[in-house]
Amino acid sequence: MPTNVTKSHMAVAQNASGRSLNVPIYTIDSGIAGPNVYIQSSIHGSEVQGNVVIYHLIQALKQYPIYGSVTLVPNCNPVGTNIKAGEYTLGRFDPVNGTNWNRGYYYDEEDVINFADQVQATDTIEHIKTKFKAHTLEKIKAKSSRPWGLGLAQQLNLKLQAMASQADIVLDLHNGPVSSRHIYIPEFLAHQADKFSMPHVILIPNHFAGALDEASFCSWWTLQTLLKDRFGNDYDFNVEAYTLEMGSQEVIDFADGQQDAHTILAYLHAKGVIDQTQYQPEKMKRVGVYLSDYKTLFTDFGGMVEYVAKPGESLKQGDTLAKVLNIDDLDNEHGTHTISAPCDLIPILHFPSASVLSGTQLYKCFTNYFTITD
Amino acid sequence: MPTNVTKSHMAVAQNASGRSLNVPIYTIDSGIAGPNVYIQSSIHGSEVQGNVVIYHLIQALKQYPIYGSVTLVPNCNPVGTNIKAGEYTLGRFDPVNGTNWNRGYYYDEEDVINFADQVQATDTIEHIKTKFKAHTLEKIKAKSSRPWGLGLAQQLNLKLQAMASQADIVLDLHNGPVSSRHIYIPEFLAHQADKFSMPHVILIPNHFAGALDEASFCSWWTLQTLLKDRFGNDYDFNVEAYTLEMGSQEVIDFADGQQDAHTILAYLHAKGVIDQTQYQPEKMKRVGVYLSDYKTLFTDFGGMVEYVAKPGESLKQGDTLAKVLNIDDLDNEHGTHTISAPCDLIPILHFPSASVLSGTQLYKCFTNYFTITD
Amino acid sequence: MPTNVTKSHMAVAQNASGRSLNVPIYTIDSGIAGPNVYIQSSIHGSEVQGNVVIYHLIQALKQYPIYGSVTLVPNCNPVGTNIKAGEYTLGRFDPVNGTNWNRGYYYDEEDVINFADQVQATDTIEHIKTKFKAHTLEKIKAKSSRPWGLGLAQQLNLKLQAMASQADIVLDLHNGPVSSRHIYIPEFLAHQADKFSMPHVILIPNHFAGALDEASFCSWWTLQTLLKDRFGNDYDFNVEAYTLEMGSQEVIDFADGQQDAHTILAYLHAKGVIDQTQYQPEKMKRVGVYLSDYKTLFTDFGGMVEYVAKPGESLKQGDTLAKVLNIDDLDNEHGTHTISAPCDLIPILHFPSASVLSGTQLYKCFTNYFTITD
Amino acid sequence: MPTNVTKSHMAVAQNASGRSLNVPIYTIDSGIAGPNVYIQSSIHGSEVQGNVVIYHLIQALKQYPIYGSVTLVPNCNPVGTNIKAGEYTLGRFDPVNGTNWNRGYYYDEEDVINFADQVQATDTIEHIKTKFKAHTLEKIKAKSSRPWGLGLAQQLNLKLQAMASQADIVLDLHNGPVSSRHIYIPEFLAHQADKFSMPHVILIPNHFAGALDEASFCSWWTLQTLLKDRFGNDYDFNVEAYTLEMGSQEVIDFADGQQDAHTILAYLHAKGVIDQTQYQPEKMKRVGVYLSDYKTLFTDFGGMVEYVAKPGESLKQGDTLAKVLNIDDLDNEHGTHTISAPCDLIPILHFPSASVLSGTQLYKCFTNYFTITD
Repeated sequence: MPTNVTKSHMAVAQNASGRSLNVPIYTIDSGIAGPNVYIQSSIHGSEVQGNVVIYHLIQALKQYPIYGSVTLVPNCNPVGTNIKAGEYTLGRFDPVNGTNWNRGYYYDEEDVINFADQVQATDTIEHIKTKFKAHTLEKIKAKSSRPWGLGLAQQLNLKLQAMASQADIVLDLHNGPVSSRHIYIPEFLAHQADKFSMPHVILIPNHFAGALDEASFCSWWTLQTLLKDRFGNDYDFNVEAYTLEMGSQEVIDFADGQQDAHTILAYLHAKGVIDQTQYQPEKMKRVGVYLSDYKTLFTDFGGMVEYVAKPGESLKQGDTLAKVLNIDDLDNEHGTHTISAPCDLIPILHFPSASVLSGTQLYKCFTNYFTITD
Repeated sequence: MPTNVTKSHMAVAQNASGRSLNVPIYTIDSGIAGPNVYIQSSIHGSEVQGNVVIYHLIQALKQYPIYGSVTLVPNCNPVGTNIKAGEYTLGRFDPVNGTNWNRGYYYDEEDVINFADQVQATDTIEHIKTKFKAHTLEKIKAKSSRPWGLGLAQQLNLKLQAMASQADIVLDLHNGPVSSRHIYIPEFLAHQADKFSMPHVILIPNHFAGALDEASFCSWWTLQTLLKDRFGNDYDFNVEAYTLEMGSQEVIDFADGQQDAHTILAYLHAKGVIDQTQYQPEKMKRVGVYLSDYKTLFTDFGGMVEYVAKPGESLKQGDTLAKVLNIDDLDNEHGTHTISAPCDLIPILHFPSASVLSGTQLYKCFTNYFTITD
Repeated sequence: MPTNVTKSHMAVAQNASGRSLNVPIYTIDSGIAGPNVYIQSSIHGSEVQGNVVIYHLIQALKQYPIYGSVTLVPNCNPVGTNIKAGEYTLGRFDPVNGTNWNRGYYYDEEDVINFADQVQATDTIEHIKTKFKAHTLEKIKAKSSRPWGLGLAQQLNLKLQAMASQADIVLDLHNGPVSSRHIYIPEFLAHQADKFSMPHVILIPNHFAGALDEASFCSWWTLQTLLKDRFGNDYDFNVEAYTLEMGSQEVIDFADGQQDAHTILAYLHAKGVIDQTQYQPEKMKRVGVYLSDYKTLFTDFGGMVEYVAKPGESLKQGDTLAKVLNIDDLDNEHGTHTISAPCDLIPILHFPSASVLSGTQLYKCFTNYFTITD
Repeated sequence: MPTNVTKSHMAVAQNASGRSLNVPIYTIDSGIAGPNVYIQSSIHGSEVQGNVVIYHLIQALKQYPIYGSVTLVPNCNPVGTNIKAGEYTLGRFDPVNGTNWNRGYYYDEEDVINFADQVQATDTIEHIKTKFKAHTLEKIKAKSSRPWGLGLAQQLNLKLQAMASQADIVLDLHNGPVSSRHIYIPEFLAHQADKFSMPHVILIPNHFAGALDEASFCSWWTLQTLLKDRFGNDYDFNVEAYTLEMGSQEVIDFADGQQDAHTILAYLHAKGVIDQTQYQPEKMKRVGVYLSDYKTLFTDFGGMVEYVAKPGESLKQGDTLAKVLNIDDLDNEHGTHTISAPCDLIPILHFPSASVLSGTQLYKCFTNYFTITD
């Protein structure tokens, strides 16, 4: 029983020509009960592999009955996608003011506290869930319609979040600069790590820093914590949100994308969205790290760098991370120098250009990491 | 008795060629006791008028005896000064990652609380002041030397703040995009507004958002509040910090700069740094606003804009702020439309380009403003 | 008898989202015989005043009978219009590869020679004109459909030129950086200078450097020269093309735009396109210069500049053009230095930012200029 | 007998801070007669591998006697090296005006003709060579000191060319975007192709398009042609110039750089600069193409691209070059489409970003290529 795919477009911005910039919205729904899934990609304009993943997801999902619905929004940031600066895409921030495109989602702990205060001990999970989704949507819309307006990134974020906030599962597809595949999982969902075929797992606390995954799970996590405190019961709302980092930016690869889609389909199978048993997470080694141990190594020099350590490799303290060329010392022993691992670590991603200033994010690394599955 | 000007240079960054980027530091000191003054300009690379102001300040100050010392750091951000994107200077944020150059200074309320806990009731103001400066410097240095390093903007900010934190008076010279002259004054120094020949005054609360003025005054304001709470006395540390907005970016004007220098010299005279009575604040109309009433009007459209209302003009609700050209409707009645003032207001600055996307900061405006001097 | 305005859109490019980028095309035609006029604006994305001029032209023209037709293409470069780099529009060149948006039009002297060879002594002007327009269009289309394709700027240019090449009058509306109003007139049309209310006139030779005005007039100029050589007669094809520089970039001004529209309407009246005698060129002082005397003054220093001489002012040799601040010498006599006029000149435009590197186009100046009208 | 390396710096520009931007110049000279070699790298700021090659060259050359001299200028464009736009280096053109950094060298056919007219039949090759170098240097200096100045790129180019013009061998080290290793060889030096371990060779005619290799060899090639025409003799000046493309931009790799250095050392050995027989060109398959058959495939669509064909692979007509994702058609059969090779070809390089507009240089390809060595 193939399932229909419905397509619509939503205007999320207007450019200097006065033209609306639209995002495509694909919805797959068989009319059978189940979780609502929201998947978006390319909020950072140069992180494009997720678009291929969504392509493959649609090809697969339309063949099966869907329990619930899946909404897919590829290329969700038409401004960021289309800003070139040289041959590359300046997709990480608004070129006008530097605002990161992934920092303007809505979350307000006070609003959750206020909502929690209204919950009755006798309210069912489903009742609370329905009301909380409506409550959040109302807050998002109120914020979107402030009389003096909002910045572009925030306008865009809130339009997307109006959809995401109504979902039970939110997947935000990103890429690193030059990067291994990794996933951000909120700590209260740590047990879900083995549902994804992702070798590197970052466990994040209930702290909102502006991103969509946080905006999505912090509110539910906070709500369940507050209700447990008040009523003593465990409230499992079965709402989950993750950021998946699908390799390196500026690149699409259809074969890899099929693998990535398989990763997500296996998770959706585990969540009951599809009943296709062929989609299973890989048996693989997974290592995890707490966010506070996911370290950025900044340069204290400027120069030209060979990234010797490749994303995903295990390094011992003292192993070579990078080799630096010092252009004014090619005739003496300072012509090159080496950057070593300050401790045992796994580099997860590195800067995508050989040319770095001081204060550049050279590598992001797992330290104090642990095995999740072997 | 002319005073010597000492010049030195400090490396604040290294570029991809491996070359150090230096800022010039001018120090004027007659060896007479008095307040230490720190003045910097161009932390945002396209905001260059402050450099001319510092030029005029040096020409004036070197003629007089100085009570205390004056440290002047023009062009304090050699990275931001030198990033061109087209003919203009991309000076507001790090072109690599979008980080605003004026958001990485150090302030930590916890550190102030810890320090306040150590203060004795019998400690003199001078003793506390000396110790607190040393304490802050130590914290700045600790932060600067974190083993995994820091981002470029923060490295730069902390190097500058190591100097500013030892001063009694901190003046950070900025420009708006297309802008009137205005000043940010912390609320606890509101009475100082008439010391500056600045027609527009924004009063800001004890809230740290990353800028140098805040980093400078929040710590002292917090400390005096804590000590008053503990000991009941008023602790006036006589430390002041301001951000002065010297008109529009991308422009220098020597004649205006002489006026701007006069504004600062009058303030320095009021603070006893110089004893030259010819420097007096202008008798002028000054209007003030609380930060929460200093509103940004964002566009909800994209198009081309004539900025009809000029910075500094008083507008009544409904007056025309801007007129918009709609390029696809030149043949019908929607060819232009008008943006009106949503309330009585004074536009202080506006966006510097006719071409705007939706979500652009069209104007920043005083609302609910009040007269400070007439 | 008001005249209908017809609107259509033409796709000139596709962005990374796969969306077509369209330019609006307004056509005004009363069905009466007369010259075909083609007017475009904003081929350089930050030069936006022409869009307002076209707005005013449409408002005026639709009230009158039109002899011939007027085609108006505002905002003719939707890529350039929408590239922001900071708050400004990076509109002068393709951000991917640096290609100037106004250098990819078609002109091939060989093709004109080949065409001229086919002309018979007995062919009428009208016959030759019709055939040459068809010939040129065919060449443009052939170039546009080369099997390996063309760069973006050239694709755009040729799509616009397919329209412009069929016109008898071509007006390309531009702006300078910070600029007076001036006009480029081909030398063989020098007598037309008094038809435009433009104080500064640059007379350009029959040399193709890639721009639309040149592409338009070089072919006709060359053709008439060749035919005169062959047949001894004067062939006046009555085809004209001009670039009008409507003040400064990044700014629109509706009142100025009405003046600019009046300038064009007076010219169109002179050419018989409208019969409204209220549109007359201003009686004004006009000065002219040959292109070889229109000099660019490049900097041989880097620093911060006050543009002392304003566009349009007459300067004597030795008068001050600009004053430079030297940030590392604020304590000595080299703190500032002055750039003087190397000869008598009129600065027409200057660089729009105070911050310049060595090798910057500081000013463009009329030298050896002469009076056209007094 | 190790050889001394001398280091100096030359100021090539001044930035907006008023600071000189210097290039390092390494000279290796044993005082033994022989050819003068000039090698530069990174005139395009993001093409950095040549810097590593120069590092390895210096390590090697300083061990041996040098016959003649070798001048090495790494990182020869300190402006281009240090312009970031996002994480990448905007190194291909001046960010202010779009001028390609490799198009402002000096060559004037008229000057060569004038020089040739002065040559006597009895002049020796060495005499002519010495005089022509002096003549060219004089012209370069005259051009550099024009009273109204020159643009930044041209100033830089001429300062470098003042050195290169005095050499007998000029090597300009570049990179492609994502690229195989290839070399540009002037047709009159086609027989030298087997001296370089470069699999792909582009043979270029005696046509000046602004680049350093052309500027270097066109003058000598033209001179020898003119003298042959006049005197009937073959004049072999033994001056050679090449552009070597050392793989992909934005990357340095020390191991590859050692290979690249070996390639150059083998060529220098063949030219008698060193007498170390261990440096020999690889026995390898080399294919060549005439410049007119080195084709750029431009896109006629916008979208996201997987570069299926890798640089250096042989493709048959109809083979897949690229696969395109159409973001608005993920639900139908137009979700992807394929770009096929229009003829048999070898892709040499491709665009470095998956996101392309229409009119993008997707691939540059050898067509009608031929075998040079097997």
